Amino acid sequence: MQVSPLAPAASPSIPPVEGVLFSTGAAGVRYAGRTDVMLVDIAPGSTVAGVFTRSATRSAAVLDCQAKLAKLTEKPRHGFAIVVNSGNANTFTGERGARDVAAISAAAGQAVGIPPEHVFTSSTGVIGEPLPSERITGILPELVAGLSADRFEAAARAIMTTDTFPKGAVEQVEIAGRTVTIAGIAKGSGMIAPDMATMLGYIFTDANVTRDGLQSMLSAATKTSFNAVTVDSDTSTSDTVLLVATGRAQTPPISSGRSAEGRVFAAALGRVMQDLALQIVRDGEGATKLVEVRVTGAKSVRDAEKVARAIADSPLVKTAIAGEDPNWGRIVMAVGKSGAEADRDRLTIRFGDILVAEKGWRAETYREEDGAGYMKGEELVVAVDLGLGRGSATVWTCDLTARYIEINADYRS
Amino acid sequence: MQVSPLAPAASPSIPPVEGVLFSTGAAGVRYAGRTDVMLVDIAPGSTVAGVFTRSATRSAAVLDCQAKLAKLTEKPRHGFAIVVNSGNANTFTGERGARDVAAISAAAGQAVGIPPEHVFTSSTGVIGEPLPSERITGILPELVAGLSADRFEAAARAIMTTDTFPKGAVEQVEIAGRTVTIAGIAKGSGMIAPDMATMLGYIFTDANVTRDGLQSMLSAATKTSFNAVTVDSDTSTSDTVLLVATGRAQTPPISSGRSAEGRVFAAALGRVMQDLALQIVRDGEGATKLVEVRVTGAKSVRDAEKVARAIADSPLVKTAIAGEDPNWGRIVMAVGKSGAEADRDRLTIRFGDILVAEKGWRAETYREEDGAGYMKGEELVVAVDLGLGRGSATVWTCDLTARYIEINADYRS
Repeated sequence: MQVSPLAPAASPSIPPVEGVLFSTGAAGVRYAGRTDVMLVDIAPGSTVAGVFTRSATRSAAVLDCQAKLAKLTEKPRHGFAIVVNSGNANTFTGERGARDVAAISAAAGQAVGIPPEHVFTSSTGVIGEPLPSERITGILPELVAGLSADRFEAAARAIMTTDTFPKGAVEQVEIAGRTVTIAGIAKGSGMIAPDMATMLGYIFTDANVTRDGLQSMLSAATKTSFNAVTVDSDTSTSDTVLLVATGRAQTPPISSGRSAEGRVFAAALGRVMQDLALQIVRDGEGATKLVEVRVTGAKSVRDAEKVARAIADSPLVKTAIAGEDPNWGRIVMAVGKSGAEADRDRLTIRFGDILVAEKGWRAETYREEDGAGYMKGEELVVAVDLGLGRGSATVWTCDLTARYIEINADYRS
Repeated sequence: MQVSPLAPAASPSIPPVEGVLFSTGAAGVRYAGRTDVMLVDIAPGSTVAGVFTRSATRSAAVLDCQAKLAKLTEKPRHGFAIVVNSGNANTFTGERGARDVAAISAAAGQAVGIPPEHVFTSSTGVIGEPLPSERITGILPELVAGLSADRFEAAARAIMTTDTFPKGAVEQVEIAGRTVTIAGIAKGSGMIAPDMATMLGYIFTDANVTRDGLQSMLSAATKTSFNAVTVDSDTSTSDTVLLVATGRAQTPPISSGRSAEGRVFAAALGRVMQDLALQIVRDGEGATKLVEVRVTGAKSVRDAEKVARAIADSPLVKTAIAGEDPNWGRIVMAVGKSGAEADRDRLTIRFGDILVAEKGWRAETYREEDGAGYMKGEELVVAVDLGLGRGSATVWTCDLTARYIEINADYRS
């Protein structure tokens, strides 16, 4: 498959995170000739946090992760493992789905010497098909033998479905005189892909962070990263982000994003997650443009989010962008349908720095050729100010092209 | 432009409605070589009701219609007029937009001999451009001279934008020994079209209906017709449906849909409106399939509507249907993301009569080739039972094809 035109020029070089080992293998879950299982081995003394899809039909693996996270105590004696397969989502597979998750957890726990309650699993791919979990458990000895700290890119490749490039990001910051690494991988491609795909993200740090602190900082950063991107408004049954802190950098414990150390950590975590989230949009199916929708001046943050999402999810806005048409009327339409409070005469619309519309009409200075020229860019900013208050929100999306239809109408991954 | 493959085989033959005269003309608002203005002249003694877009950025004409309807008294002395133009939506045109509506109302009122407050206008087409209202008022003498009872199809053509066929529907019923006619026209094509288009509908009857009765029956029927269809989830700033009752059939007055006569009238009105609404979906841009999404067994009607809309608006569901892929996993995804209460193990999914999934998994009897065969049809039913209660809802939509992208990315009408 051709790599997205919006892909980063190069994959980042990601250093090891102390206490975290990776391994990948080819289990033949569905795909041939590629790796499709990732095993992560996490040292004792680590903390784990997670955020998940809110879907009412979420997958067996998501339900299992949520139950296990809820039961964890602070700094348990054992380490953790994460097992992820691509090729099969193990979703809508009845009670058998839960049995397959249990089988993988039991076998992986045994293989790395931890209780099965410390094994988190994710599955992404086709749904409604039984997961051949024995293929995954069958290669566990091989995976354990191959564990290595230096496998970020291989791990990012093993979890891909229709992604056209592996997604990784890293930040290093000084905390209390120690260098802390935050490194993550993710796969998309968006909330969407043939058979729904899934958004998965796994982020690792050697910082020393309490369980509650880790969860609160992960949840906060999700709002402005993975929950602020949309490819086609569809939501997977398997979306999962796990954040692991091994503490090996021996910083003082961080228990929230409000302390001096916490602020530094939370900001770096936010950058890693936003970087990964934007890579997912850059790999949106058929995408040729990355679009940042910035809404300001709303009555509330909630209203700003509604407007930003209405614009970012509008098929008419997204097709206009695909066609490089500066069709600002569709922005007006999306603002109007969003459900947020809006006043035609206070609305201001800009494409990048170009003032397009204000005071209830096209701006006097606006020239269609300026808008058309701007739309030829690969990275676009659509800025809307509602002129009503101080609520603001930013959402990232991509354009909607005929290629998206081809991918989703013609293939099942 | 090629006529939609889902177009009805023939346009219905619509008889005159006593008290209603039509005329059409070519004002050159934007299009050349076609009619683009419709004038309707309605006899004194008539009642009028309307439903409109809920957009916060609705057009000058919509705001004007709403203000005029609110001020109407029961059976005023004068008749009414409706003036509709295609080619320009007069939306987001600042204060000038309201002045153009006033100019058309004044000129049309004078031309047919009624006060301007009795003139309703609609505009559909490009937005953000000033409406050349003088072109419309300039052909009013010609329009008045051409008024005739027998112009339904010509009227339906004059209001088209990207529609590929004119849309009309008629029902005749006996009420108190009198034959009552309910006839309507509409344009789509969906909530969508280049520059948003608009859904417009005008329905006329010679029944004798009070103003409040007309409004309540129109509002009720809108729920299961124009508000139960979706092409791409986008909402126009100009959506308008007007219902006019001239009383010339001399039935006893109908003041609600609950009397014996009211029930007959409301049912026939519902059929006309649903027929028009489905014609709009059949003319959805790029549509090759008409899809009925039937949801039953929800906790509430509101939950059923949420699920039906989540399925009908899902780009992944709609692209799968375009590809004739019986991808029921995407139905599960849409149920899950809808926000309605759902239980994986109680969910039942059918394509037409084919049982696809139940009890949390693919049905034992389901064979992929049966689903694939079903998907080759032009008119499809996706039925979902949630197994939780008695709430039900039906929504109609069409598939999402590469042609939709082409139309919306490459042209501005």
